[in-house]
Formats: sequence, C-alpha cells, structure tokens
Amino acid sequence: MAQSSTVNGRGTGEAEIRSLVADSVKALRAKDIDRLVASYAPDVMLFDVVNPLRSRGADAVRKRLEDWLTFRDPIEYEVRDLSISTAGDVAFSHSLNHVNATTNDGKKLDMWWRASVGYRKLDGKWLITLEHVSVPFDVTSGKASLDLKPE
Amino acid sequence: MAQSSTVNGRGTGEAEIRSLVADSVKALRAKDIDRLVASYAPDVMLFDVVNPLRSRGADAVRKRLEDWLTFRDPIEYEVRDLSISTAGDVAFSHSLNHVNATTNDGKKLDMWWRASVGYRKLDGKWLITLEHVSVPFDVTSGKASLDLKPE
Repeated sequence: MAQSSTVNGRGTGEAEIRSLVADSVKALRAKDIDRLVASYAPDVMLFDVVNPLRSRGADAVRKRLEDWLTFRDPIEYEVRDLSISTAGDVAFSHSLNHVNATTNDGKKLDMWWRASVGYRKLDGKWLITLEHVSVPFDVTSGKASLDLKPE
Repeated sequence: MAQSSTVNGRGTGEAEIRSLVADSVKALRAKDIDRLVASYAPDVMLFDVVNPLRSRGADAVRKRLEDWLTFRDPIEYEVRDLSISTAGDVAFSHSLNHVNATTNDGKKLDMWWRASVGYRKLDGKWLITLEHVSVPFDVTSGKASLDLKPE
C-alpha cells in the first residue's frame, strides 16, 4: 500500500503493464511481429498452447508468431479480465484472450485461451520473462477444448 | 539488487516461495488436501489442465484436488526446474511438474505438465492467487499431449 503513490510503486507498475498489454493488442492486430517480440526477454520461458511442452527465448516466440499470425485483415483480438499484480520490478498478469479471424487459406479461427504472463523490469523497461498460454482439455475425449467461451 | 540482503527482499521471498513449494510437494504425496488448500488465496484464479476454461476460489481448488488426488500410495511427484521471480509482496514461479502414480481403480498416470503460479504476501503469509497448469495440444490430432517429457 505504501508503494502505490511512489514513482516505482504498484500504481505506476500496473499502469505500465496495462499499457504494454494494450500495445501488444494493437501490434497483434497489425501483425507487427517485430513490435510484439520487442516485449520479450531474450531468455523468456514459453509454455505455448500447442506442442512442445516448453520452449525458451525470444527467437522461439518469433517463430511461433510467424507460424500462427497468418490471418487476413481485419483480425478481431481482445484481452479480457486482465488482472495485474506488481511490486518493484516484478509483475504477473492473467487474462482470457480471444481471437476471431480468418487465415490466409480461408479457415475461420474463433478461440479463447488462458494467458498468464510474468514480467521483470530490466534497465527501466518491462519485459516478458514467462508466457503461459493454454486451453484445457476434455477428460472424456482427450481433445483440447478449442470452443470454450467465458461464462 | 539492493533488496537482496534485506529481511523483506528478494532473497528472503525466493526462499519462502521455495519452501512453500517444497511443502506442497510433501502435502501432495501425503494426499493432505487441507494442507494444500491452505496455500491458496480465497479468490485464487485457477486455469486448470482440464475443463472448464477457468474457475475461481479455494473451494474450486479443493474440489479439483478431491476429484484428482485418488491415487494409491506411494505417489511419485516432482517439481522440476522451478524458477522464482519476486519483489516485495509479489512473486511468480514456473516449473514442470510430474506425477507417476496409480489410481485407486488401477489406472497408471505418468504425466508432465507446465505450472505457472502467482503469489501475494498477505498478512505476512504467501498465498497463491493464480495457478495455471496445462499441457499443450497436438495441432494435427487436436488431442491434449499427455505423454510429453522434458527434453
């Protein structure tokens, strides 16, 4: 609480993270991969929606974006129920993210997923050091649940 | 950096989280659901391995543990590559978790999953405010990848 009105305190940190997320939404809609990748720490840990179990590094993030971000304009993309916890140079957030778009080869994608993100402030700049994005699976079918919507 | 030698600083926070995780490993092996649930904030956000998309609250965590923790003794359970980031009263961690056990009705479960956990220190006690556990899925089959192992 004492931190919330200081320059490096919770209020400022939360506003900075919220701004970073808002910028990433714009960058994703613009398919601006360089701008997206600039927010990741060089050694970020990535737990992705699809295989493998984990990968590490901003280069892995770039590769994933290049493989995935093959949508026609316009891309509908939103980050819902963003919650941020921050103190000093550490922050984490969670949200439900949603894309509704058509791939370049004509497939519709309308999907929600869970996102948990860890951040560290390094040399005055917040960077993503952990990104965990996933969908749950259905126990009976063993299939990933690609069509769930927030209650 | 300045914080790392102070009582409430990074070093202490990391040691406290590491201790909390070590205790949760023991509690899980002992199937001690009360002890596990005591580490969660009342309004924890749970992004679980299985449906639904999200659930909220320590009661939801308890329900999940009661449904899932139906193994015969002994339970092999490990938390690998635990990484912790902490400042002040906020922390997050990631790890790969592994269970190898037999259910009460005789099914073998040998499975790795990704875990990202957010913590807040409230009234001097670290509590889990976010738990995100998942497996990725295979794009071709649409199936959850239940048999991946760390590289």
